[in-house]
Amino acid sequence: MSQFTDRLVGAALTSAVCVGLDPHPDKLPKPVRSSDNPAALFCEEIVKATGPYAAAYKPNLAFFEALGRKGYDALERAIAAIREYAPQALIIGDGKRNDIGSTASRYAVAMFEGWGFDAVTVNPYLGWDGIRPFAEYEDRGVYLLAMTSNPSATELQDFRGMSDRLFQHVTKLAEREWNKYGNIGLVVGATRPERIAQVRGPAPSLPFLIPGIGAQGGDLEAAVKIGFIEGKAPALINASRSIIYASSGEDFAEKAAEEAKRMRDQIQDLRA
Amino acid sequence: MSQFTDRLVGAALTSAVCVGLDPHPDKLPKPVRSSDNPAALFCEEIVKATGPYAAAYKPNLAFFEALGRKGYDALERAIAAIREYAPQALIIGDGKRNDIGSTASRYAVAMFEGWGFDAVTVNPYLGWDGIRPFAEYEDRGVYLLAMTSNPSATELQDFRGMSDRLFQHVTKLAEREWNKYGNIGLVVGATRPERIAQVRGPAPSLPFLIPGIGAQGGDLEAAVKIGFIEGKAPALINASRSIIYASSGEDFAEKAAEEAKRMRDQIQDLRA
Repeated sequence: MSQFTDRLVGAALTSAVCVGLDPHPDKLPKPVRSSDNPAALFCEEIVKATGPYAAAYKPNLAFFEALGRKGYDALERAIAAIREYAPQALIIGDGKRNDIGSTASRYAVAMFEGWGFDAVTVNPYLGWDGIRPFAEYEDRGVYLLAMTSNPSATELQDFRGMSDRLFQHVTKLAEREWNKYGNIGLVVGATRPERIAQVRGPAPSLPFLIPGIGAQGGDLEAAVKIGFIEGKAPALINASRSIIYASSGEDFAEKAAEEAKRMRDQIQDLRA
Repeated sequence: MSQFTDRLVGAALTSAVCVGLDPHPDKLPKPVRSSDNPAALFCEEIVKATGPYAAAYKPNLAFFEALGRKGYDALERAIAAIREYAPQALIIGDGKRNDIGSTASRYAVAMFEGWGFDAVTVNPYLGWDGIRPFAEYEDRGVYLLAMTSNPSATELQDFRGMSDRLFQHVTKLAEREWNKYGNIGLVVGATRPERIAQVRGPAPSLPFLIPGIGAQGGDLEAAVKIGFIEGKAPALINASRSIIYASSGEDFAEKAAEEAKRMRDQIQDLRA
């Protein structure tokens, strides 16, 4: 197993919950709004409260970038809080970056050397050239978008070839061609449960990152039953809004912790 | 015509050159290296020198993100320099962003409201959900990746369906379904000249952004002959390394200007 897979297996033993950090200014709870940097304080408080229940955190870069310089500071503070309050947790930089090889190398520097993420999400539309610069960081993980959780995902991802649909083609390339360093994973949305099995079939060894649980209404049971290869490639099951915005009041951090714990327990029961 | 297309037609009348701003620390010319922010100074000098010959500038966000906070400052200074020294030029934020709708909205805020880009590049793998939040800024442009310029582009983009390859499927969706606001364009690499015609066929009305000229060795004549729909949807032909790194000495800005002018003249001759 690669160093990344080792870490993933360890991190996901007692919880498979990935907490998505999506600080949207209109949704931040009242108690943080008077702060100089509400998004930063919000992320810190969420991390402190949910730390014991998280296998991973997934800051989505869009939400930080939309806040300009304050977003940059907020992401730094969020990462520092995770390292302090949830040292067991992996940090997945969710940026879905992609570009030609020489440029993808610069994204890899930004994500792995700059922010220090343990793993990233990458859009595979450009093929191996655009994936390799990330994968060459052998101790980090690279989750490739296979089947996303959004309604229009099917427009391209279900594009029907001679024998496979596009998401199956991507899955096979990921399993058979691209996993040269043992650190490739797949993003597989839980909103189309039948697809989870259709990705697992041709990818018997790759770890999944499964979004779409919670606000998006995905199928947790299918995600757990099909998503996990215990001991080798555990899934990380992400929820963002349902955890971090569990309450908009004074108890926002406490309620987030309750929801993370509830989800952790539910997943561990299903794994048992 | 949309407001974006109007601006594009105006900007591209006397030059179709898009100057790609890819400040790589190992490639910066000696005269800027002692600056407190070499990438920022480099971009400013390149913009001042090439301003008269550019229809557009395309800062690639990867190169700025890899420089951390200094990269953030450098991008701000590059944009300010373009507005000052090349007020006619469009600024294309090349980030190839993509995500589910609610998240893509935040990227659109970052790109259009934060940085103030006139256009962006977007990866279409998530379908219309992930494109719409950008396209809804009706006065801005959205260039979708159709056929990229890198060697492994074909792994996914050439994926063969019943009657079309994936890049043709994307092209048809872009032309027939997604261009609701009249501001969708396509990224079509010049490194596979035969593909430019195969995209133009099903996209008779969309403006192209054509990378791959210069360092990547693309076919300029094919790009111009097939890429342009004069008066309606002019192409922007991008060169990055061949212009900005034309010299690594004291004359780097002067040589960049010469190369931009040479390319402008060559394209205008081919357009005539």
